[in-house]
This record gives sequence, C-alpha cells and structure tokens, in this order.
Amino acid sequence: MAVNFPPLAPLLPIAGVRLATLAAHIKAWEREDVTLIELAPGATCVGVFTRNAFCAAPVTLCRQHLAQTAPRYWLINAGNANAGTGAAGMQDALACCTSLASLGDCAPQSVLPFSTGVIGQRLPAHKIQAVLPAAVAALAADHWTQAAHAIMTTDTVPKGISLSFEVEGQHCHITGITKGAGMIRPDMATMLAFIATDAAVAAPLLQHCLEQAVNQSFNRISIDSDTSTNDACVLAATGRSGAPLLTEENSPGVAALQQALTQVCVTLAQLIVRDGEGATKFITVAVEGGATQQECLEVAYTIAHSPLVKTAFFASDANWGRILAAVGRAGLVDLDLNAIAIYLGEVCIVRDGGVAPDYTEAQGQAVMAASDIQVRVVLGRGDQQAQVWTCDFSYDYVRINAEYRS
Amino acid sequence: MAVNFPPLAPLLPIAGVRLATLAAHIKAWEREDVTLIELAPGATCVGVFTRNAFCAAPVTLCRQHLAQTAPRYWLINAGNANAGTGAAGMQDALACCTSLASLGDCAPQSVLPFSTGVIGQRLPAHKIQAVLPAAVAALAADHWTQAAHAIMTTDTVPKGISLSFEVEGQHCHITGITKGAGMIRPDMATMLAFIATDAAVAAPLLQHCLEQAVNQSFNRISIDSDTSTNDACVLAATGRSGAPLLTEENSPGVAALQQALTQVCVTLAQLIVRDGEGATKFITVAVEGGATQQECLEVAYTIAHSPLVKTAFFASDANWGRILAAVGRAGLVDLDLNAIAIYLGEVCIVRDGGVAPDYTEAQGQAVMAASDIQVRVVLGRGDQQAQVWTCDFSYDYVRINAEYRS
Repeated sequence: MAVNFPPLAPLLPIAGVRLATLAAHIKAWEREDVTLIELAPGATCVGVFTRNAFCAAPVTLCRQHLAQTAPRYWLINAGNANAGTGAAGMQDALACCTSLASLGDCAPQSVLPFSTGVIGQRLPAHKIQAVLPAAVAALAADHWTQAAHAIMTTDTVPKGISLSFEVEGQHCHITGITKGAGMIRPDMATMLAFIATDAAVAAPLLQHCLEQAVNQSFNRISIDSDTSTNDACVLAATGRSGAPLLTEENSPGVAALQQALTQVCVTLAQLIVRDGEGATKFITVAVEGGATQQECLEVAYTIAHSPLVKTAFFASDANWGRILAAVGRAGLVDLDLNAIAIYLGEVCIVRDGGVAPDYTEAQGQAVMAASDIQVRVVLGRGDQQAQVWTCDFSYDYVRINAEYRS
Repeated sequence: MAVNFPPLAPLLPIAGVRLATLAAHIKAWEREDVTLIELAPGATCVGVFTRNAFCAAPVTLCRQHLAQTAPRYWLINAGNANAGTGAAGMQDALACCTSLASLGDCAPQSVLPFSTGVIGQRLPAHKIQAVLPAAVAALAADHWTQAAHAIMTTDTVPKGISLSFEVEGQHCHITGITKGAGMIRPDMATMLAFIATDAAVAAPLLQHCLEQAVNQSFNRISIDSDTSTNDACVLAATGRSGAPLLTEENSPGVAALQQALTQVCVTLAQLIVRDGEGATKFITVAVEGGATQQECLEVAYTIAHSPLVKTAFFASDANWGRILAAVGRAGLVDLDLNAIAIYLGEVCIVRDGGVAPDYTEAQGQAVMAASDIQVRVVLGRGDQQAQVWTCDFSYDYVRINAEYRS
C-alpha cells in the first residue's frame, strides 16, 4: 500500500554501535519485537520527544535518564506503548532498564527505554526481561536492517537510510531507522527514530543539530493530525570515525553533519508518510509568499488536515474548491484573496479570487492521476515559505483504525 | 443513515412569512432546489455568516444588502455554492436579486441570496431567474416543510423545528429550518439556517439574541473540521404576533425569546450532526473543570476532530487511549495529568494519570454499543465548562466525499 516506496537500501554499520533483535511475543505474533541498541563508551546522545502532555512512561524515563548520564543502551519494544499506565507503567519500564543494566554492567540510568503499540495496557516487562540475555549475546554492528523491521507496528515496510559526509577530510557515516504510520502529527519528533553517526560531536551541539533537522522533517509531516504519546527521536555520535570533535556551530564540518542529518531526517519523515495508514497518495503542500513562516505552516497544515481535501485526493478528484476553502479558514488576518494563487503541480487552478480562466478539468485530473502530487499556495504577502508532507484519507484508513486497537 | 433522527415535526406558519419551492434543475436532478421566502414589510432581519476568508459571492452580497435596507426576500438555491467564482459569481448572484426585485417591486438590496452545493462552478442564474415568476405566485405561509426539503444537498433528511413562547402574555411562535451534512465546523454559523418568529424585536437586540444562540449551538458542532465558504444563519422577526416590540436586553419577554431561539438553534445544530455524512454515532463531548471556557473548547474540539477517536467510535471500540492522547495534545499549559478524569457515559475510564483501576472493557463496550454517546472530561483546574457535538468517521464518509464534488 505504501506510495512509491523505494526498496530499503543497505544500511551502513556505524562504528561504536551494535544491535540485536529478538522475539518476545509482546503481542500474539511470531515476529521480532524487541530491539537492543548498544552505544560504545564515550558516545554522546541527544533526543527530542513528544509534546503530548499524556506522554508515555518510557518517554518520561528517557528524559530523566538523558539528564543524568550518557546512555549505553536503547531498548525498544513494539506491540505495547506503555502509555496511560500510570505509576505501574513507570515501574515496568524501570524494571526493564534495571535488568539490562545488570547484564550490561552499567547504571539503570544508562538505559533509554522506548515503547510503541497499543495504549493503556500494562507492559509485559517479564517477556522483555526474558529475552535480554540472548539480546546482549547477539549484539552485532550489521543488524540495522533487522532493527528497522523489529520496531514496526502498523507499518507495512521498514524504513531506513545511510549517508556519508566529511569532517575535515575524514569520512563519517550516519544511519537512521524509523517507524510510524498512524497517530502521526509530530509536534517535536516522530513516533520513533533512531539515528547514529561515527562523527565526534559534543552533546550541546549535537542537540542543536538534531533540533534543526527535526524541525525540517519530522515536524513537517502529518498523516492524521494526531500527535502520539510516544514520539521520540534519538541521535548518537560515537566519535569512532577518527574525525576531530565538533563542539561549536561554526566548526568546519558542522555544516556537512547538519546537511547529512537533515537529509536523513527528511527521508525518514517522508518514508513515514509514504507508508501512512491506508495512503494511496503522497502529497507535498508548499506554501510561499507568506509574511511569516508560521502563517505558511498554518495554511499548509489546514490543507494537510482537511478530511475533505484528503478524501478528494483519494478519489483523484481535482477538487480545488476544498483547497480554497481550507486556505480561507486557516485564520490569516487581512488575507487578500485576489493576491492568492493555488497550483496543482505546475497547473494554476486559482488566481484573482476564483478559478483561473485558462484552467481546464483535464489539466487538473492529469496531475491528480499521479501518486506523488504537489499543492502549491502562493499567498502574495511576503517572502516566507514552509512545506509539509501528508497523504490521502482512504477506506483503508478507516478500516485499519476501526480494527486496530492503537 | 442519520443517527436516532426524529421524524420532522409539523412546522408552524409564522405570520408575515410566506414560502415557495420550485425545481430549477440546477443540477441534473428533478427535485425542488430553489426556495423563496418572503418577509412582510416591517419585519426586522439579522444574520451571522461564515468567517472563511474565501466566502462565497452570496455571503458577500448578504452582508452588503443587510447593511443597506430591511430584507423582503430570502432567495436560496441548492446544488451550486457560487463560491470561488470571482467577479462573475457576484454578477450572477446580483442578477438573481435584480430579477426578483423587479417582480416583487422592491430594491435589489432587499433580496438576500443564499447558495449551497458544489464550489467553483458558475451559478446558472438564468435557471433561477426562469422560475422566479412561478415562485412569487406560489408563495404561501404553510410551505416550511417543503422548504426544509428544497434546501438540502448531501443531507439525507430534512431538518426543522417550531416552538412557542410568551412575550408579556402574548403567544409568539418561532420556526427554523437548516441544511448541512459535510464541510461542517461552523466558525460563526452553520451551512444554512433560516429562522423566523412573529415576535416584534428591534434589529440590534435581535442580532444580539441570534449571536447568543449561535454560540451555544451552530458554533458547537463539527462533523469534519472543515468550515464552509457559505455558512449563513438568518433570523427574521415579523412582529405579527401582536406582542409588544422588544428593544432592550432587559425587556420582559426577551428571556423567553432567547430561550426559544437558543433551543431552536441547538436542535437544528444537533440535527445536522445526526445527519453528518456517513455518521453512525452522535457524540457529545463535554469538558468541565477548566480554568477558562476557551481551554474547555480546545480540549473538546481536539477530541471531536481526532480521526483516530472518530474511527474508534465507528468501530464501537472503547479505545480510551486515543481520547487520552487527544486531551494530552490539546495544548493546555501546566496540565496536571493526575487531576484529570475521563468518562464514557457514566463509566470512569481514566483517573490518576492512567486507566481507572475498577474499569473493565465490558463497561466501556456497553457504552460504546449505543448510538448516542457522551464523552466527559474533567480537567480539575477550574469551574468553566463547554460542550460540542460531533459524529464518527465511517467508510461512508470517505465514500461520500470521494464521490461527491462539493
């Protein structure tokens, strides 16, 4: 079902990172659902997390642990979100961290837990604890692809990317994997994303780079406008590439790191949308000519969240009236309708406050027949721009979410 | 498909108001689609209209005409919204007003035009003009029910209500009809609503009463979060009841008028939701214990707009985790999760930051099995409250909006 989804390319090992995947049978399934990622001593690690006030127990623990010490392990389970579980949920997550810490000879605070799946059921911590010894024994550098599979829930395809970049002549590498297909309107990060590089980067700079990248990627997508309780995106820098330590924003090499990291995040974010629940179209909503970037985003999200726009895309119907209505209700003050132009792909459909005189239905239908579509809105009141990525609303979205207890 | 929809009760004539309905074949259909409503000289008339910046030509004309003179006619067509039609759309709407004015011996400014239907196509004004002589000849006081039918688009059932009230011992009457089933998240009024009373009310007071009523009714519903380009709600007071003229908010009888008007508006608004496109559930979202009414509304609308919550209701799935996630992302500052309680009907499902210890799935499923359901959220941080009404998201919502060019 995923829209124009590229095959998963080979994922490069990152020196200083080892992974293992095991089947803990958290749900009644046979597939691998627990992923352990080990970071070598000395790695720096940063993260961004959901802004949902009802954040899950593992998100709360991640924040606490990150503030206390450098992580040695990322422990991820699919099938259960450990959200809405109160004090018991915190105990369950901490129990998993403690068991792993004793096996890995580190403090419980060195473990970051991540959970994704159904909300509101107790996490079967004993099932996770039972597979940890085997997981530690199975750790290997070349298990990124297996991990991309094991973190999936309603995803239909695994999602990952690797890139190379240079820091002062030294080759560095970055690999990221992610999961997510529904309850996607990240307000800070996506469902779950795990990224590592062998560059050497001081933690404050690494945090800055991650926030820059996330704001252009995971914070620019929406499948159904629902921000998850479990969103998390973490990034580790192991420093094993041999490249010099980066500490300042203006250090040589930071631009290359930022570019690679942003490209990884944008690719992963777009892969999530392409695998959106029930998606048949991948839609780029680009808004330009705004007075502020914020108002461009408001228009873009109003279009991207409109059920009427999304069902029209599902029907391949060039129903520009619904796009126009969405622009009109986005709440922009003193909007000059006559200054606005709306394009479907390269075709101008609206200008001068109404349908473009030279527009024909055939032109619109030709654009809508494709599965990758761009909507471009020109506001004509400034030089700011923003774009978001979304997908359509189909029968299958309803089916998946009427059947699945997320 | 409409949810627990009551049969249309008899609609009372209002002295000073006559109606006629005709088939102008605006779309390829045989049904009546043009409605003419005549107000007797001396009637006061007020209205509220969509806040969508891309408002339709008839909305713009309505605002202009209302500011100039007391209306004599409301002219309504279904099948074409005359929205997104630029200068040509204004000419088309004005042409209809001018034709009617010459037949009715009044100024074109005395005609308020209303259109509903597909966006972005030229209004076939000649078809409307052609039926106007027959419409004027057919005007009668007892045609409210026919009008409730003739203003429908994707509505599956006609919607109307009549009530009586007293002003200083004098019996007065109020009758209202409305239409709307999709693109419903009124920001000021609903799609179209036409209300008349035989009370005598000065225009400023009448406008105040209408705004009070609309804020508790049409502005508290959402089917799909999409605010229409054509929303309009107009109210006429003919003064033919013999009751004394009401001019001040504290006049005896204003409270009775306000109560009746609000009840008419709430009933009509709820009927719209019950006939929501594809609706199988009627859902009341009540939020209480907020610091402000605005934050109660934000939480209520976040729940009411969540596609995940709406598909769970469609599945009759007591998926409280999605409700909890919606509360958490509503953007309230310093939300104390442990103070929040969430109820499905009378069943407490969430308290103390997690699922209620005594909650059972069977209890939740029993509530969800009904077709009228209340979600109640207690924020525990103040004494303000607000409620909104919405419906679920079904396969049929997607089908209707993938097939229908709105």
